Amino acid sequence: MLIVMHKGAGEEDVARVVQAIEARGLGARPIPGGERVAIGILHNRGPVDPNWVLGLPGVKEAIPVTRPYKLVSREFHPEDTRIRVGDVSIGNGTLVVIAGPCAIESEDQALTIAHHVKRAGAHLFRGGAFKPRTSPYSFQGLGEKALRILEKVRKETGMPVVTEALDHTLYDLVEEAADIVQIGARNMQNFSLLRRAGQSRKPVLLKRGMSATLDEWLMAAEYILEGGNPNVIFCERGIRTFAHHSRNTLDLSAVPVVRKESHLPIIVDPSHACGRRNQVIPLSRAAVAVGANGLMVEVHHKPDEALSDGAQSLYPDQFRQLCREIEPLVQLYTGVPQGPFASERSSSRL
Amino acid sequence: MLIVMHKGAGEEDVARVVQAIEARGLGARPIPGGERVAIGILHNRGPVDPNWVLGLPGVKEAIPVTRPYKLVSREFHPEDTRIRVGDVSIGNGTLVVIAGPCAIESEDQALTIAHHVKRAGAHLFRGGAFKPRTSPYSFQGLGEKALRILEKVRKETGMPVVTEALDHTLYDLVEEAADIVQIGARNMQNFSLLRRAGQSRKPVLLKRGMSATLDEWLMAAEYILEGGNPNVIFCERGIRTFAHHSRNTLDLSAVPVVRKESHLPIIVDPSHACGRRNQVIPLSRAAVAVGANGLMVEVHHKPDEALSDGAQSLYPDQFRQLCREIEPLVQLYTGVPQGPFASERSSSRL
Amino acid sequence: MLIVMHKGAGEEDVARVVQAIEARGLGARPIPGGERVAIGILHNRGPVDPNWVLGLPGVKEAIPVTRPYKLVSREFHPEDTRIRVGDVSIGNGTLVVIAGPCAIESEDQALTIAHHVKRAGAHLFRGGAFKPRTSPYSFQGLGEKALRILEKVRKETGMPVVTEALDHTLYDLVEEAADIVQIGARNMQNFSLLRRAGQSRKPVLLKRGMSATLDEWLMAAEYILEGGNPNVIFCERGIRTFAHHSRNTLDLSAVPVVRKESHLPIIVDPSHACGRRNQVIPLSRAAVAVGANGLMVEVHHKPDEALSDGAQSLYPDQFRQLCREIEPLVQLYTGVPQGPFASERSSSRL
Amino acid sequence: MLIVMHKGAGEEDVARVVQAIEARGLGARPIPGGERVAIGILHNRGPVDPNWVLGLPGVKEAIPVTRPYKLVSREFHPEDTRIRVGDVSIGNGTLVVIAGPCAIESEDQALTIAHHVKRAGAHLFRGGAFKPRTSPYSFQGLGEKALRILEKVRKETGMPVVTEALDHTLYDLVEEAADIVQIGARNMQNFSLLRRAGQSRKPVLLKRGMSATLDEWLMAAEYILEGGNPNVIFCERGIRTFAHHSRNTLDLSAVPVVRKESHLPIIVDPSHACGRRNQVIPLSRAAVAVGANGLMVEVHHKPDEALSDGAQSLYPDQFRQLCREIEPLVQLYTGVPQGPFASERSSSRL
Repeated sequence: MLIVMHKGAGEEDVARVVQAIEARGLGARPIPGGERVAIGILHNRGPVDPNWVLGLPGVKEAIPVTRPYKLVSREFHPEDTRIRVGDVSIGNGTLVVIAGPCAIESEDQALTIAHHVKRAGAHLFRGGAFKPRTSPYSFQGLGEKALRILEKVRKETGMPVVTEALDHTLYDLVEEAADIVQIGARNMQNFSLLRRAGQSRKPVLLKRGMSATLDEWLMAAEYILEGGNPNVIFCERGIRTFAHHSRNTLDLSAVPVVRKESHLPIIVDPSHACGRRNQVIPLSRAAVAVGANGLMVEVHHKPDEALSDGAQSLYPDQFRQLCREIEPLVQLYTGVPQGPFASERSSSRL
Repeated sequence: MLIVMHKGAGEEDVARVVQAIEARGLGARPIPGGERVAIGILHNRGPVDPNWVLGLPGVKEAIPVTRPYKLVSREFHPEDTRIRVGDVSIGNGTLVVIAGPCAIESEDQALTIAHHVKRAGAHLFRGGAFKPRTSPYSFQGLGEKALRILEKVRKETGMPVVTEALDHTLYDLVEEAADIVQIGARNMQNFSLLRRAGQSRKPVLLKRGMSATLDEWLMAAEYILEGGNPNVIFCERGIRTFAHHSRNTLDLSAVPVVRKESHLPIIVDPSHACGRRNQVIPLSRAAVAVGANGLMVEVHHKPDEALSDGAQSLYPDQFRQLCREIEPLVQLYTGVPQGPFASERSSSRL
Repeated sequence: MLIVMHKGAGEEDVARVVQAIEARGLGARPIPGGERVAIGILHNRGPVDPNWVLGLPGVKEAIPVTRPYKLVSREFHPEDTRIRVGDVSIGNGTLVVIAGPCAIESEDQALTIAHHVKRAGAHLFRGGAFKPRTSPYSFQGLGEKALRILEKVRKETGMPVVTEALDHTLYDLVEEAADIVQIGARNMQNFSLLRRAGQSRKPVLLKRGMSATLDEWLMAAEYILEGGNPNVIFCERGIRTFAHHSRNTLDLSAVPVVRKESHLPIIVDPSHACGRRNQVIPLSRAAVAVGANGLMVEVHHKPDEALSDGAQSLYPDQFRQLCREIEPLVQLYTGVPQGPFASERSSSRL
Repeated sequence: MLIVMHKGAGEEDVARVVQAIEARGLGARPIPGGERVAIGILHNRGPVDPNWVLGLPGVKEAIPVTRPYKLVSREFHPEDTRIRVGDVSIGNGTLVVIAGPCAIESEDQALTIAHHVKRAGAHLFRGGAFKPRTSPYSFQGLGEKALRILEKVRKETGMPVVTEALDHTLYDLVEEAADIVQIGARNMQNFSLLRRAGQSRKPVLLKRGMSATLDEWLMAAEYILEGGNPNVIFCERGIRTFAHHSRNTLDLSAVPVVRKESHLPIIVDPSHACGRRNQVIPLSRAAVAVGANGLMVEVHHKPDEALSDGAQSLYPDQFRQLCREIEPLVQLYTGVPQGPFASERSSSRL
């Protein structure tokens, strides 16, 4: 961390800051500048909270010069992490497609959709058992009954299944039934849930919070890795902005940046990002082209009767079209994930 | 809800929408317009999820014409709700001041600050026992030990205490020790926590999520009231925007709007909103003037040694200054909360 | 427009609204609903400003049910517009690549870069003559001298040139020298400039404002078309959000939505969107895959000496890499622009 | 400016950065850190554009440690600037109230409203002659005719008048008729307009852009001061966020921050910020309490017939109520502007 003092700051102000730093067992190195003094903090293991420094008289800014996260960082783990789920491997340069309904509504609905998406080329099946809903009056999911249905889907189709755990006490149930446990956008900073996920060994699909910075997102994953679970998959699902032509604004630049900062795989959920069926296919093509490790897409055979998020669910024939359209991209970009680093390297080469 | 069809939509499209609505046991009333048809949905108890409608061919937009929330709504409960905590009453037109450190660090620290803020005029004491922290490496709070310290603060100073419950399993502990249980911004849509709060009778301080719309915030409170707990206090603490001269952007227009839409009291937390000590006093004056029912302010006698959020904590003498500065406002605005409605009324009178 | 009344609104309130509407020579049709009354506005040519309605007692909301724009709308002009510039045609299903430095710094710099990008496959050359700069102390561009250099670039390389007009009085100069006149993000609602562009016949590259909604953007183009100039090309260049891992957040969902709402072509500027060299290539791939009609990319042979925006400029070999990487996409997506509509249609077919 | 290098950066990377800095005639001082090297830039007059530095291999971040603005900065001009307009002085610790219709619609309308607001206590009259409108089909203002009406208002009521100049060529006309020339939010970075305002000596009311950071806003004022016109008044009018319960989100923390960073006065426009009549009075109280130097409020005697922004215009009796409600605040806060600095000082005292 680097502390920048006000122009007017006096020697006693600098002295107080140095004291306060050393009182924390850290080293302080004053750096005289043209107009003002800066003070570097040394010997700090892990990040230093800038707030107590900003509280000191004469201090203008505190600038972190080390990343706040460690275990998720590519600086600490240069190679891509690959996460194995059944026969599928996520993060190995091929594209993983996760598809299914927003919510499990019945065994018949789940199996019908599962067979549709498998035939079209999906690798994993998604379906909500416990649904986080803005309104207490909306459908909340079938709960445990849905978990049994998911097990049946896996048995019948061979596809591993992804479903969300709403809190740490439900985690046991979900962890037992699911191949990948999803942590939703609203729970990205539910630290009890993150700690529980850290005690598990099941892969975790960590969705980005609606207004989370990349640092906050990576720190949420750090909770899970720090707990002992190295199997985290990031999922970009759009951020909240002033724009309202799509439900959220899909932030595709997060993909190259997360791939550069971290060794963990990242997939994209275009369905929740746009919230409108007719944006899903073009945004899926874009997500593959930008270098995502996978897609998670909502599909429903009767979206106009869906109990949640029907408007963003693709019809089975649209999902087939999506798979057809991304097929050539996957061939092109097997190995594209290196793209961003390639361009990095070439710039460093110069 | 009102459904607006595309210009090109045919009769069969309209028929399908009507069918889909009636299939849900609702009434559908087509409304022929100049260029296009609209369809009204009738007999719906509670809100209708627009998504399944948007999924139908020919549908352009779905417009809610009833509020999604009920129990929190002023339409259903015209009078202001007053919440009693010890000798203090929140929502009765006087201003309640809650003050204390971000986190309880020791009995000595808590009692020292408690005596400072009580002398200056605070009505309630705040202090974090369990801290939600972005980093797993940051100070996480003293936990139960802090709850015992809070009880001692109440015993010694007579001030009721406010502290946060991080999840539903910790709720029993916190509920027993606290007079008001805080639900933090990151947990505003932690539905397990909201449901647990609904089973309690202890007042709940519900902070606004970093990117929550007012509807989402009111719906979060609806979970608690729907569970049977009528004692909810809203707390505006700033929203996340592009601006970075303050940590968050304090949205004071939320105060008159929430007071108009709901009967529940609303207070303002300027400390977390700005994150900078020298903005706290002016924003506190503004919060009182806009018609808030109370303030929650961070105070620390040694902010440069605080284990969290020191930069936004006031020094005791600054807190005294704050109380002096808002004193005359409180006298002016005892009864101002009616302000917004007064202006409403006068506009209706015309 | 549809006006929704408050539950409590009385007959006299409805009557007043009807009066106010008819006083404007429009038709008013009250629509009795379950809980409240709605009032439709008929016979309106062009959009109705909702504000005067919202001012009336008893009015809850005013909902536009017709688009505010006309001439830019696909409803009024179903076929894609193709804009011819020299031998290049924009909007005909092939991809147009515009490349060059942020600012023209010298004839040597411009020609060097122009030859680089032409060899790599660029169709048009871009370079700033008049630069809008946040600071009055930053390099403001070479002005007219740069226009002469651009003419020389066209003469030597055969590439049409794109450069920005900062205001309506400079328009004559720029219009004479440029093949496409750019209107920058900060000027998207500079109405004097838009009207001047409407009097021209030169194609206009209209960048999206930093916080412009799609409606505002399309309305800005409506000013130009309404003035008589049908040759407008939209350019998505990122919007301002809370995220700071890229300078702006590239909003790729704008591409399918604009293509659906309007007949005008839309290109993407990944360089200004991200502001970081190593995000440009992946975002360019994504922009092509999402269905953009073109790309505008900054290239500089000595970015570390560039007088503006060096950090986002590609090195020539990176630009060659970019062209290599998008080449197969262009072959795939010649005709993809129909993609979004295809998926639309297939959903309508069902 | 301070340049932070990547952990892996080699000596040759550092050497290249030093070279690039010195090639610009600046001084470079490498600062060895615990894990990585930082490089300070010295002897720079005015701000340094970070972009060319970020383009260099091995560079992680570039951190400005001096403000980009000079003439507007309190560091360069410690005392508050007071701007004299007729008998009114803005920035001298009393509150200035500017009121009137959004647009001048007729002499009768203007004079009627002018007499209303003067009687209620307004010091200046506002009214749009040239209106920036999102739609080319909306009312664009009466233009010069309105300027004549404004002169008549001043003659009859003695109130100085404020009106907007849409571009630099209209500036002569507006400058001659108005006592204060307004530059609108959409034009905050119309640099031709800012330069023209710099050549004038008439006071300028500079509205904050919809998504402008404080630095960008202060830099826009720097253009005017740098041109030779020291009479700039800032006007906070709300920023664009995801929230939609008010048209924009009024950012009141901008007031203490601008007052701290700059010596120029700042007023608040609650009407455009909220866009809803019933939020105007509470937000006005808040604006006065936070320490603004003035208010600008829209008033119309027949808002339901207003040609623009009727929904946010107060009725004359509401404006009287507003003046009554802020009256005691003004008495309290004559001299409050020192508030933020007082709290600053007291913290420095400790």
